[in-house]
Amino acid sequence: MSFKKIDELNQTLNSLEHALAMLHADEATFMPTGGGENRAGAMAALSEIYHHKAAAPEIADWIAQAREEELDNDQQLGLNEFERLYNNLTCLPAEFVSRKTMACIKCEQLWRQSRPEGDWKNFAPALSKIVALMREEAQMRAAATGLFPYDAMMEQYDPGNRVADIDPLFERLKIFLRDFIPEALQIQQKKHKDRPLKPLSGSFGADKQRALGLAAMEKIGFDFNHGRLDTSHHPFCGGVPSDVRMTTRYDSENFLSGLMGVLHETGHALYEQGLPQENGHWPHNKARGMGLHESQSLFMEMQIARSPQFWAWIMPMVKTHIGNGVFDGFGVEDILAHVNMVRRGLIRVDADELTYPLHVILRYELEKDLVDGKLEVNDIPQAWHEKMRQYLGLSTIDNMKDGPMQDVHWPAGLFGYFPSYTLGAMMAAQQFSALEKQLPDALEQVERGDFSAINKWRKDNIWNEGARWTTPELMKKATGETLNPEYFIAHLKRRYMG
Amino acid sequence: MSFKKIDELNQTLNSLEHALAMLHADEATFMPTGGGENRAGAMAALSEIYHHKAAAPEIADWIAQAREEELDNDQQLGLNEFERLYNNLTCLPAEFVSRKTMACIKCEQLWRQSRPEGDWKNFAPALSKIVALMREEAQMRAAATGLFPYDAMMEQYDPGNRVADIDPLFERLKIFLRDFIPEALQIQQKKHKDRPLKPLSGSFGADKQRALGLAAMEKIGFDFNHGRLDTSHHPFCGGVPSDVRMTTRYDSENFLSGLMGVLHETGHALYEQGLPQENGHWPHNKARGMGLHESQSLFMEMQIARSPQFWAWIMPMVKTHIGNGVFDGFGVEDILAHVNMVRRGLIRVDADELTYPLHVILRYELEKDLVDGKLEVNDIPQAWHEKMRQYLGLSTIDNMKDGPMQDVHWPAGLFGYFPSYTLGAMMAAQQFSALEKQLPDALEQVERGDFSAINKWRKDNIWNEGARWTTPELMKKATGETLNPEYFIAHLKRRYMG
Repeated sequence: MSFKKIDELNQTLNSLEHALAMLHADEATFMPTGGGENRAGAMAALSEIYHHKAAAPEIADWIAQAREEELDNDQQLGLNEFERLYNNLTCLPAEFVSRKTMACIKCEQLWRQSRPEGDWKNFAPALSKIVALMREEAQMRAAATGLFPYDAMMEQYDPGNRVADIDPLFERLKIFLRDFIPEALQIQQKKHKDRPLKPLSGSFGADKQRALGLAAMEKIGFDFNHGRLDTSHHPFCGGVPSDVRMTTRYDSENFLSGLMGVLHETGHALYEQGLPQENGHWPHNKARGMGLHESQSLFMEMQIARSPQFWAWIMPMVKTHIGNGVFDGFGVEDILAHVNMVRRGLIRVDADELTYPLHVILRYELEKDLVDGKLEVNDIPQAWHEKMRQYLGLSTIDNMKDGPMQDVHWPAGLFGYFPSYTLGAMMAAQQFSALEKQLPDALEQVERGDFSAINKWRKDNIWNEGARWTTPELMKKATGETLNPEYFIAHLKRRYMG
Repeated sequence: MSFKKIDELNQTLNSLEHALAMLHADEATFMPTGGGENRAGAMAALSEIYHHKAAAPEIADWIAQAREEELDNDQQLGLNEFERLYNNLTCLPAEFVSRKTMACIKCEQLWRQSRPEGDWKNFAPALSKIVALMREEAQMRAAATGLFPYDAMMEQYDPGNRVADIDPLFERLKIFLRDFIPEALQIQQKKHKDRPLKPLSGSFGADKQRALGLAAMEKIGFDFNHGRLDTSHHPFCGGVPSDVRMTTRYDSENFLSGLMGVLHETGHALYEQGLPQENGHWPHNKARGMGLHESQSLFMEMQIARSPQFWAWIMPMVKTHIGNGVFDGFGVEDILAHVNMVRRGLIRVDADELTYPLHVILRYELEKDLVDGKLEVNDIPQAWHEKMRQYLGLSTIDNMKDGPMQDVHWPAGLFGYFPSYTLGAMMAAQQFSALEKQLPDALEQVERGDFSAINKWRKDNIWNEGARWTTPELMKKATGETLNPEYFIAHLKRRYMG
């Protein structure tokens, strides 16, 4: 009977999540600006109702009683994940949550004001408050989970991720990239000398870019009966598995940014659409975590859509939809030179596949120290600058805007989230390698525009598993071993040494 | 303190209404088909949460206690309307509501199946169940309100509407129309003889029709910072006052249907956008009722947008946006001959301004008798046929599909709703007449495309009042007298005798 109560609660929570996801997607795509204030109020009220229902004290008893009931194996797994989320939600006192929410709202507002001028002095006191709250939160989460403080923070986004496991992986990757990036840049320079870069200049209408994106999505396996593509300021993949709301944006001078956005988000979307439908209102049938989700988008974007085979396949489609003679005389190598261009830069979101991990590792190292009390907010500018120097040879000493003030994550209180990006990239490479063992001609299939066997492997090994296992467990089940940086490194070597 | 509790409850209820309105609009405009099942589940769960919160028993005490607190006049009015809605929601036992909901869902499904074949035999037993439930409901509503049963049903949609007041108005209108329609048809025939109807044939692209609609909406006063126009199968005006979601549909061969849809819905939209914003979460700052809402759309569609002055103004815009030579040699009279074409037909939703009221009066008379037990479902086909004969000279004896099976209202349990349509048309004529007393050149202003003074009158006299008064009270405040059919009759004479 208690299991049934939890089942009914999950129906209700799932419905509230549905409403919140749709209101969120609508806000970013269709809502007129003037609707924003009331929308924010409505979403806050719905979140409150959600929290009130999801964190009700009697649920602890339901869980305990359900453990005594006769449950099959899948119900047990569902109950495990439900309990994990319940503990995640209830391990912080309500008083703390509202204090944190207020502080984050204020800090984000201040960040928005201060960032354009890079006004660190104005911003730092508010960020200090957030860091103090994060330390407090990490202690409480640690007490509730028995984990180390920063591990307990990561646990919110990717259960099973541990500093003790990640540190050596990131160390290996960091050292590799520090040597490899200069090498790759030299190779790139030589290539550009041998075969001068052909400019991708043209004026690409949004309608035509959209038609190209839709055509690609369809061939790749996006189910338009359960989702759609719209436009938003920042690309995202939202909605719910039965109705995925995906977006991109169109730059009339650069079709690549919009198309790569579509391909990245299609990776997320296929994961959502491929999740188990039966008992879809239960948390163990939802997506695993941020890192694994990112592995699904990067599997599509990095492993598949930046390969020569993918471009051999899609180039005729590009020409048909937006060509107009712009690509006359373009070979696949000419477009790949743009697709896989490496450039050291200050901004994480603009970084390429090769330099991106260093941006993430920098943040990971700093936020770990912030949470553990080894670093104070006032020392961030210097620490950031030194690491940027070390990792990418760039200075941010007088550039707070493009240095430690570039991301919303810290003001928003998202500590423990950053590693997901690069862990996702590493997971994607490892998944692709596992796939190739079973499907040695995977890339030839891509070249033929046949994604069915690739999607089937992903469905069987990842999507179908939902949130039944921790991220490391799921990786081990899907690929035969826990996360190993050598797959990603091998992938980078193959792509940027060639 | 109790008033404050109600205020907070209204914030929550308003947020749930916001979510439901947006999910509903999204469903009709953007949602892919496959998302429907989960969407229905999510909306049902949200409605349940809404009902649970809005009908909580302790609210009765809050209302009683708030009455003892020091409230200003507007707070009193808010409390009155809140109490009315609370009683409306709680006067039926939960057991009855769920029994009714189930029966309506089943009857609607059966209606959808049976209607294409006009299979009355299959449909009638389910409708009989609905009628039995409606009688039960009307009795309970009557007991709770002290009204007659059918009055108590109408009270849900337009508070203050009473059979004793409406019967004589409808009687007057019915008798007038029975004689007037043949006369108007003769005049129309003669006109077409003198000035042959110019066909409106052309192929009008949806994009161009949309641009025309947007241009018209903007000039008429639609605020695009708080609303948008989309496409749906049936035009509607949904969303919330701060974010009105309006739709139309485009027929490539008939631009008039899409444009008149836009103009009708713009009437609804201006009402929503013009409602009081302060304390907008309180029910007395929301729209009054179905009849008054319809008066706002018909004010725009019938009083303004079917006038010669309106077409003198909009014709150049039509030519600019979708012209392409189609309207060469068209005068305003040529287009008005299409806009105001009268045709007797079986289908209410396809009816013109002149024949539409008879469709409504027919339903009003039948559903009143159904609720009062004077008519049984088995006798509907004959009664429908006889009235159609009498009112419009048409037979539905062997045509259930286009007779008593054409509307969703009865299977959906919406008894007491139909009169709103024609009451709205009558109110609109009376409002326009009152407006003209203060603004004698109103139609010349329309001809100049200046809607500011007209909208100001509507804002001051109708929109600003929200739901502070019953519909008859509001009409009296706005126009100086309660509903008088002579304004509508005079309007019809002016338009169709001229």
